[in-house]
Amino acid sequence: MIRLHLDRDSRTPLFEQIASAFRERILGGLLREGAELPPERDLAKRLGVNRSTVVRAYAELKADGFVEAKVGRGTVVAAAGSGTGQAPGRTEPLEWDPLFRPETASCGDFFSEMMSVNGREGVISFAPGFPDPDLFPLEEFLALQRELGISGLRSQFLPSPVEGYSPLREKVAELLADRGIDVPPGEVMILSGSQQGLDFAARTFLSPGDTVLVEKSSFFGALEIFRAVGARVAGISMDRDGMRTDLLEGAIRRHNPRLIYTLPTFQNPTGITLSLERRRELLETAGRFGVPVLEDDPYGELRYEGEPIPPLKALDRCGGVIYLSSFSKVLSLGLRVGWVSAPAPVIERFSRLKQMTDLHVNTPAQVLLDRFLGQGFYFPHIERVRKAYREKRDRLAECLSRYRPRVGWDWDLPEGGYYLWCSLPGFFPLRAFVARAAENRVAFLPGTAFHADGIPRQNRIRLNFTHVRLEEIEEGARRLARAAEKAMENGSVELGPADGQEPVV
Amino acid sequence: MIRLHLDRDSRTPLFEQIASAFRERILGGLLREGAELPPERDLAKRLGVNRSTVVRAYAELKADGFVEAKVGRGTVVAAAGSGTGQAPGRTEPLEWDPLFRPETASCGDFFSEMMSVNGREGVISFAPGFPDPDLFPLEEFLALQRELGISGLRSQFLPSPVEGYSPLREKVAELLADRGIDVPPGEVMILSGSQQGLDFAARTFLSPGDTVLVEKSSFFGALEIFRAVGARVAGISMDRDGMRTDLLEGAIRRHNPRLIYTLPTFQNPTGITLSLERRRELLETAGRFGVPVLEDDPYGELRYEGEPIPPLKALDRCGGVIYLSSFSKVLSLGLRVGWVSAPAPVIERFSRLKQMTDLHVNTPAQVLLDRFLGQGFYFPHIERVRKAYREKRDRLAECLSRYRPRVGWDWDLPEGGYYLWCSLPGFFPLRAFVARAAENRVAFLPGTAFHADGIPRQNRIRLNFTHVRLEEIEEGARRLARAAEKAMENGSVELGPADGQEPVV
Repeated sequence: MIRLHLDRDSRTPLFEQIASAFRERILGGLLREGAELPPERDLAKRLGVNRSTVVRAYAELKADGFVEAKVGRGTVVAAAGSGTGQAPGRTEPLEWDPLFRPETASCGDFFSEMMSVNGREGVISFAPGFPDPDLFPLEEFLALQRELGISGLRSQFLPSPVEGYSPLREKVAELLADRGIDVPPGEVMILSGSQQGLDFAARTFLSPGDTVLVEKSSFFGALEIFRAVGARVAGISMDRDGMRTDLLEGAIRRHNPRLIYTLPTFQNPTGITLSLERRRELLETAGRFGVPVLEDDPYGELRYEGEPIPPLKALDRCGGVIYLSSFSKVLSLGLRVGWVSAPAPVIERFSRLKQMTDLHVNTPAQVLLDRFLGQGFYFPHIERVRKAYREKRDRLAECLSRYRPRVGWDWDLPEGGYYLWCSLPGFFPLRAFVARAAENRVAFLPGTAFHADGIPRQNRIRLNFTHVRLEEIEEGARRLARAAEKAMENGSVELGPADGQEPVV
Repeated sequence: MIRLHLDRDSRTPLFEQIASAFRERILGGLLREGAELPPERDLAKRLGVNRSTVVRAYAELKADGFVEAKVGRGTVVAAAGSGTGQAPGRTEPLEWDPLFRPETASCGDFFSEMMSVNGREGVISFAPGFPDPDLFPLEEFLALQRELGISGLRSQFLPSPVEGYSPLREKVAELLADRGIDVPPGEVMILSGSQQGLDFAARTFLSPGDTVLVEKSSFFGALEIFRAVGARVAGISMDRDGMRTDLLEGAIRRHNPRLIYTLPTFQNPTGITLSLERRRELLETAGRFGVPVLEDDPYGELRYEGEPIPPLKALDRCGGVIYLSSFSKVLSLGLRVGWVSAPAPVIERFSRLKQMTDLHVNTPAQVLLDRFLGQGFYFPHIERVRKAYREKRDRLAECLSRYRPRVGWDWDLPEGGYYLWCSLPGFFPLRAFVARAAENRVAFLPGTAFHADGIPRQNRIRLNFTHVRLEEIEEGARRLARAAEKAMENGSVELGPADGQEPVV
């Protein structure tokens, strides 16, 4: 049934409002040829108007050719073309594909896939990079909302500055000081997740044909962003201490990169941390060649053991590091709040992009996080999260160990972060493994998703251990092992390069 | 004072945690050469550890060369270079300007400027396109938050799908039906404001050198976005019925545009509405040449009088219209929630861009708006807003009329929306007017900000009447008039093209 909203205070007479509502729906195709209008008496009753008002409205529609009286059927929508207000006759649909810019075509769809797999009934998923929903600090947030009350609510609906809600920028600057990064709030900008910082960096620094240096396996979201602006990604090999900085100078000379993108701490997908020695080498080499370093640090606070190592940004003396981080991995992905810390000229560029893209970050989320940090909830929360994730990591490693003799998989235990980067025996039928896993209702991401360049990683999988429930990890590992075994049994060896050619990680 | 967070459950011994915290801060430059570490006894007390633990930590730092004992000053940070963990010696700062992509340089900064003017004490501002903060439905939102409670809060922290929270997509599809637009929820995608849809459209359709057709005066944010991807904007003249569609075919033949961008209803900045007749012409011509139409409709629901006209999207038979709208102008800008409705191939492209840019829209805002619509709060709210804005529009027109004989300004009363497009006498000293207005603590946007191409609009200003308080409109108009008079007295005629060359609006 058509909903009509009459405005009794309007200067437009009621009959005109009724007529125009039908006119709109007929033009919009909601009421098609032959559709019956409600009997005048019924409509008048429903709208609480005099019948004469509806009669007049219908008369107007008739005069304009929109409707006609049919014997035995009352008032019906007239044939297209008989009205004066018809839409154009042409109905040939527009073909979109030739209209799109070619660069946007190549992007993958990992996040969408993860979201859909994740929601499926009974699936145990090691795939997404999500936090544990049972660890959301709900009581704290609820208390803050209550405390904010109606006056606080008002401020949350106001627009905030492009660079972010000022009190939150200050709190983030304090948080950064705790990581050894000493910057004024003016060099912090709030973003809709650190992902947005990757996009802004790509749009600020990369023209089609430019090259970005990345770790040989790297975050698929970043690789997509770089490729979408037409840039090439060149991978630098890693070992257990992270990016092989001894190869960096050669790569810079060869590729003349516009940017070095790195996740130095608990890298995605490998979990590896760049050593302090190499951090200094990376900064020294990048500084010597004047190449900006884009440091992505969403996991840095999630160290489960070993000694903390300062972020590159904390060691930077050339002002060449753009530092991205986020609340997504430690608090909640759904809030979409991250930040960038960078020298003023970069902040200025990013803020122009922010203004163009979406003006500013959702204000309520910024206000809430400001209060969360201000009331000292953050560090105790991180402690809780660390403890829980360490336990999950250990449980996963322990359960995977049980099946090691049969499957032959292997890994280095990451000192922190979200992921266990699991290597499979050489010539592993990876595609068959993915298919068997889906049958067994268990999910993971294949190493090929993180592939920068060169030889695809046929024998690696990324297992996230933070999102899955602790008590499901054992069953998840069992399903994984069964799927791997089945893949090995049935799957003939997949064609592909020899795995011996790949570096250690 | 340095904050230290000790993890008593960690496998890392406490003395090692303390040592590493100092090491990090020294490396990060937070503790510089000569800085004094706290006396051992004080630090032990503050951290609640044995003094021997601190002693051991300091001994380790000494052994590594990070600190040294100074007579009479206790433990101080050692000279740079004496430690083993020093950052690289190079300190020459990176020069950023040559590293930026040239296209991002040209963007203006209107939003940032508005935000700063708006906050200034005592300023009456007709500049921003903001809603009236006194009309936020705070009681409704508070009730919804209370109702959602702790279990609802949990769902708000979860990630949502790239295309938007499904129940909200359904609600928006219902809302669109009310505007005569009949689309399935799958052809609706939630965005961080309709502004993001402009950005996505630019990135999807425009390569450098491409042309977009726009109304001759148009939304500055859109113009910036198009220019930032290297596109050219070509303006089509308007009259009192909107874009002159009789000029469209010629413009298409001349410019071969990739996109037609239009605000057909209560246009920004002119307030003009495209007539039904012209809507059909526009669609017919665009369809004939296969040019997609980007329809921006943030103000469509804010009609104060006259008969509603369906959006282009409701009249579209070729599936060539991409329709953007938003909650920003009718509810709250700070939530950053808008949407696009478009054929499936476009939604697919946009969702890839969304995934790359910021994954998805802030979940709490989506959940809240879903409930707001679901509980029937939306239409009564729109009624309230309409009434209040109509009153403000009339008050502004009435107050401006008072000074008309002296200043000589003129306008057409807009039938809806946010803006009164005020024309000034020919050869008006616009720059002097802006300066005098700032002195008189009143703000507006000069017509030049909306300038697409051709001759800049030296004799127009945009006055927003929704954000200013009703009781301040009179004083605001008085200040505007005084500033205009002063500008006319002092300001010699500004150099520029004759205003007679410009079209009617």
